[in-house]
Formats: sequence, structure tokens, C-alpha cells
Amino acid sequence: MSGPISPLASPFPDLPPIGGVHVAVARAGYKLWERTDLTYVALDVGTAVAGVTTQSKCPSPEVEWCRKALPLGRARALVVNAGNSNAFTGNRGRAAVEAITARVAANVGCNPSDVFVASTGVIGVPLPIDKAEAGIDAVLDAPEAGWLDAAQTIGTTDTFPKGAMTTAVVGGVTVTLVGIIKGSGMIAPDMATMLGFIFTDAAVEAPFLQSMLEAANRETFSCITVDGDTSTSDTVLAFATAKAGNPPLSSFDDAGADAFQAALTDLCRQLAHLVVRDGEGASKFIQITVEGAQSDSSAHRIAMSIANSPLVKTAIAGEDANWGRVVMAVGKAGEPAERDLLSIRFGPTQVAQQGLAVEDYDEAPVAVHLKGREIEIGVDLGLGEGRATVWTCDLTHGYISINADYRS
Amino acid sequence: MSGPISPLASPFPDLPPIGGVHVAVARAGYKLWERTDLTYVALDVGTAVAGVTTQSKCPSPEVEWCRKALPLGRARALVVNAGNSNAFTGNRGRAAVEAITARVAANVGCNPSDVFVASTGVIGVPLPIDKAEAGIDAVLDAPEAGWLDAAQTIGTTDTFPKGAMTTAVVGGVTVTLVGIIKGSGMIAPDMATMLGFIFTDAAVEAPFLQSMLEAANRETFSCITVDGDTSTSDTVLAFATAKAGNPPLSSFDDAGADAFQAALTDLCRQLAHLVVRDGEGASKFIQITVEGAQSDSSAHRIAMSIANSPLVKTAIAGEDANWGRVVMAVGKAGEPAERDLLSIRFGPTQVAQQGLAVEDYDEAPVAVHLKGREIEIGVDLGLGEGRATVWTCDLTHGYISINADYRS
Repeated sequence: MSGPISPLASPFPDLPPIGGVHVAVARAGYKLWERTDLTYVALDVGTAVAGVTTQSKCPSPEVEWCRKALPLGRARALVVNAGNSNAFTGNRGRAAVEAITARVAANVGCNPSDVFVASTGVIGVPLPIDKAEAGIDAVLDAPEAGWLDAAQTIGTTDTFPKGAMTTAVVGGVTVTLVGIIKGSGMIAPDMATMLGFIFTDAAVEAPFLQSMLEAANRETFSCITVDGDTSTSDTVLAFATAKAGNPPLSSFDDAGADAFQAALTDLCRQLAHLVVRDGEGASKFIQITVEGAQSDSSAHRIAMSIANSPLVKTAIAGEDANWGRVVMAVGKAGEPAERDLLSIRFGPTQVAQQGLAVEDYDEAPVAVHLKGREIEIGVDLGLGEGRATVWTCDLTHGYISINADYRS
Repeated sequence: MSGPISPLASPFPDLPPIGGVHVAVARAGYKLWERTDLTYVALDVGTAVAGVTTQSKCPSPEVEWCRKALPLGRARALVVNAGNSNAFTGNRGRAAVEAITARVAANVGCNPSDVFVASTGVIGVPLPIDKAEAGIDAVLDAPEAGWLDAAQTIGTTDTFPKGAMTTAVVGGVTVTLVGIIKGSGMIAPDMATMLGFIFTDAAVEAPFLQSMLEAANRETFSCITVDGDTSTSDTVLAFATAKAGNPPLSSFDDAGADAFQAALTDLCRQLAHLVVRDGEGASKFIQITVEGAQSDSSAHRIAMSIANSPLVKTAIAGEDANWGRVVMAVGKAGEPAERDLLSIRFGPTQVAQQGLAVEDYDEAPVAVHLKGREIEIGVDLGLGEGRATVWTCDLTHGYISINADYRS
């Protein structure tokens, strides 16, 4: 954790233990810092796993490892390193991942492919294997830790620890889902990445957990942006230990599958919002909804074009109802749009309708809305039924200071 | 012109008159400012015209007007309004363009479609027709002005006037090309747009001028970015008056056509660089070259991904050799890239090669390079023959101040 706490921070919630999940933390000393930086999660036999990883064409060896292990669907342990992303380190990076997974597997008595690894931090410096191995030996001896310890230990430039929970009733049994996440810029200064980990005691077969996680991801993690930059290491893993005793879920025909999907999506949305709330330099949380597009995916691309526009983001930072910049961002998205059908609102107030400013437009209620911390921008394209909502934060001097000035 | 002059500014060059081109400026008073804001260029009979306009799906009525008139290939006049872009103003915006072109056409004795119009400034406020008409009446009576007057009058948030020239020998005759341009953010605060105008005394048939301008545009204006935001009004027009007396150019089979294309591209590149040098808040001019891509267009997309990355741009602002952010930007471009083949250099110094930091990497020469005003980033993907060069500026507190703080 570093820097002043984000003004959009939420307090860390009370999170219950999850049956079959055992957390510990240790200090590997990946950087010269006095904090724990290695998180270890032991998972009981029978834990299913699913995951989604970065779209980057230059992923870290950890991401490549997870991608190879995920189709097997089984997990016994998770290792998260903070302070060194191990990305772009060639064979030495791969060797570090192999050393970590081998050491854990030997201790647990499982296959290396049952061990998942994620790392976040500086790019281009191989993860020091000696420190990783000593850290693993320490963490295997460490006492059980809590969710807050884990949420703090996976963080890098995050200004507050992030966690969330929810429940669902599956086949008459209440199952619990807990998640922790880190991330504040897509790449923070010399640091990196959004990493999210979800743990549930529900029994869910791995392929179905994978498809539910992918569906949740499309509506949540894929709908946030801080700066439009994509990390080499972004990873979200979901582990299901089957300790709750529900009849195992394997398809949407099973009772409770819809409820579980809704809970999983809700948890992912909570976690995604926390990342935006810790966006580098953020002073406003912005929800952007695009309706009336030709398709949902078209709406999504237009919404992301608005969310990634530096001019829209600086206007919100300046509490300026500059809807012309929203028009600009709609126009540059490259998606079907008709200027003369376009409507725009800030909060509940319509500012432009059918291609021009509303008659007798009164900026006063918009100015009040923009002074708040939670901003809403609505766009109606008037073309079809396509719809999407995305979330971002404003672009402030804080972002520049964090990313340009930190060496001075 | 506004604000302190960019540290990257170039002095306005001595530009010669172009036969058949007559410039005048006047004050229409589109804003409450004491400056000329209406530029008028009269073009002699026989002038050919070509143009490229914004990719925005929400273009201004001026852009729509130019698109309709361009295929006719003839021009007699150009009107440029500064202070109001007339974009997103519905039927009233279209009416303003029709009023302007009709008034000029009546005076000149030509078709309205021979009159070209471009406007830049606030979005969403219809251009006041009465002010435009009074301004046109004034400018038609005004004495002939110089290129510097015109370059200043088309500017909005530009911090310095921008112009360039070059010559070519076509069929034994020296022809001259002059250009003026405005633009500093793709949309500046309440202002907007890159507008560029090129005038040559060469005889070039309109369809061939169009194809040469499109070719030049692909390598120049399409290769610059300040903030990745695309205006609703971007327009570049080229006018050829045929006064030089060269045998008219109609295809690349004609003697001198290659020389003219080279000169036109060179002029466009000079003008494009001037826009980057006036990028909002810019303190460094950055050239990014991508080689070894699978195709030229793939190289272009990767180069633009680097040029538009806020994290790369803030790193350069901070004079930080953070090549991990270049890796990140290559990875997020979505184009073919192999981490283990990737090489990166800053200035002449290789920092990463074949997927990892160079052995015995010495940051000293890189630090010296990054302290300069002209920064070079080179990426070799090691995959093929594709190549592209693009230009951008860094992202500084100045950008945030201009775009977020200007109301406070």
C-alpha cells in the first residue's frame, strides 16, 4: 500500500472464512520494503479452478503457466508475489515459475500443475528464485492469516486493501463467495497489474465454473478502465472447494446455477468497482451507460471509447459539463452512430437530445451532479437495442504525479 | 493563440505567395475576443481541390459539405471560422454553412459547391449566421493579408502559428507548395480540431491530387496523436491553382509526379510535426518507429498503441526509461508480437533485446537522451518486414491543467 488513501476508498468488509481455503502470508523481500509480499493459499483436495487472463500478446510466464494449468481444472495452492511481475524476463522468468510450483508441489504432495502463480510489480527483472524459495519455505510454516492480510499482501501501489463477499442458495444450500483484488493503474509506476482471486465453498465443476467466470468477466472486469493500458499479467482466478455440500453444479439446468452465476457476477462487479475506486489519481467514480446501439458489443465499444477519452476524463476532473467531448468520443469509436439521433445526459439531466443541445438547457443541476464523487454519463444512440455499462475514473494531476514525477 | 508558447515551438517561416491564391482575414467576433477569427482565401478560376476529413461518425456540417463538394474537384474560395466549430448543431448548423457558401458564391460568381468551409471551436453552439455574414462582407472588402495573418487567424488554443513550404520540379518547372495548419489537442477546451490547408501553383488534376493527398495523409497526419481523441471537424484541403505553368499532372506516369508526391508528403509531414509540437502541455517531441512487424499496417497499429499509452507518455514526461511500459503497449495493441523476439531502444541505445533486458544495461546514455526535447523510441518485433513511424508528445501536468482546470 502506498501514497495517500484514495478519496473513493471503501472500508475493508468483514469476510467469512471459506471451507477448504487456508491463507498465509510471508515476506520474501522482493523489494527493499518492510511488508509481507508473498501470499499463499492452500486449497483442499477436490477444489475446482477457473480463470481469465490478460489479452496482452506479451504475457508474463505466470499467465502462460495458468493458461496451461487451467484446462485441467484442479487446484491445490495459489502463490501471489508482489513487487516483481517477472514479466518480460525470458527463460529466467519461466525458470522462476517452475521453481515455485515444484517447491510447493513437493510440499503439498500434488502435481505442479495444481499450483497457480501470479506476480505483480516491476517488469523486466527476473523474479529472484532464491528469495521466492525462501519466501515459500517461510509461508508454509506461517500461521493461518486473514483475508485482510492477504488483500494487503497482494497489493502494490494500491492505496487501500480490497475485498468483497456475497452468497447464493444452490440446491437448498447457502454457498459463500469471497474475493480479494489488487490494482490501481493498469500498470502502476514500476509496478503492475490487476490480480483478483475468488474463493467459494460451492461445489462447481471446473468447466462450468470457467464458463460462468467468463460470463461474469464480460460484464465486470472487461468493463472497467483506468487508463486504457493493459497489463502483461492481469489474472482473475476462481476456486471452488465444494465444502458447502450443495449438489455439484455442472450446467444451467442445475437448480441454483442461475443464482450462483448472479452471485459470482455481483462479486466480480464489486471487485471491479474497487479497482476503479483506487484508480491512480482518481477523484471521481464514473459510470457510463450507452443505450440504443446497434448491438451490445457496439454499445460496449462506444462506452469504452468515452471511458478512455483523456478529454472526457479531464472534463469530469474539472467538473465541467463539456458534453461536446462525449460527442467526440462517440464519433471516434468507429461504431454506427447518427449525430442527429444522439442524446446525452449527465446524472438525471438531459443535456443534448436528437443531435443538439436541449432547448433552455440549465447547467445548474448538472454542475451540482459533477461536484459529487459518483458521476453518471448516459448516451442514447437511438439506433437499436444494444446496451452496455462501463466504469472508469477521472484523469487528474494525481495520475501524472504518480506516473511521471515519482522519480523526482 | 493562447497560453504560454510551447517549448517545442518553431518560428514561423518565410512563406512565398502562391500564384492564384489571395488571402484576407477579418473579425467576425465568434467569441468575445479582440482578434481576427475569419480567414478567407480566394482562388483563381481553374483551381483543383482535394481533401481528407475526420474519421468521426459525428462530423460537423462543414465536413459533410466538403465531402459533398470534393468529388467535383473545383474550388474558388475557402472560408475558415475560428471560435465555433458548428459541430453537433443539427439543422441550424447546416443552415449556417449554406448561408456562408451562398453569400460567397454570389459575390464571386461561382457555384456554392466551389466554396469550401471549415470551422473550429466550441461544439454544440450553432455558428451565428449574422456574425458569419457580417464577417464575410468585411473580409471581402479587406486588403490582401499574408500567410502569417492566416495562420494566426485559423488558430484557437494553438500557442504558436504554424506554416511550412517546399518546392518540386515538375516537367522542368519549379512549383511551390505552402501549407498552414492549426491544432494542439484533438479537441482543446471548448475548442477543437486540426485544420490544414495546402496551396500550390502546380497544375494537378483534381482526382490525381486527391489520390496523392490521401497517400501523403497516410504517412503524416494519420501518424500523429496528441491524446488519441478524434475531432468532429478534422479537415485537410489541398488547392492547386495551375499558375506555375507545368504540364498538368494526372498520373504517376507524368514526369515530375513522383517529385510532386514527395514534396506534398514532405510538406504534410512538416505540418503534422508542428501540430505535435503544439500538443497540449507537450514538453517532448516523440518519434516512435516500429520495425519487423507482420505488415506495415500492423506496425502502424502497434506504434499508435505506444503513442497513445498514457503510461508511456507520462514516463517520457518524467524522463524515465521505463521500457516495461513499451512492452505493455506492444502487448495491448492486439497485433502479432512474440515476447521473446521483441527488442526496444531509446534513442540509439538498445535497452531490451530478444525478450529481456540487455546484459550489462547502462542507463546513463538513455537518461541523457530522455533529458532532451526530441525523444526516439524504436521497437523491433523480429517477425517480418512491416514498418511504421508515428509522432506524439508527452503527457504532462500541462495537459491536465489545460483540459481540467481551465474553469477554475
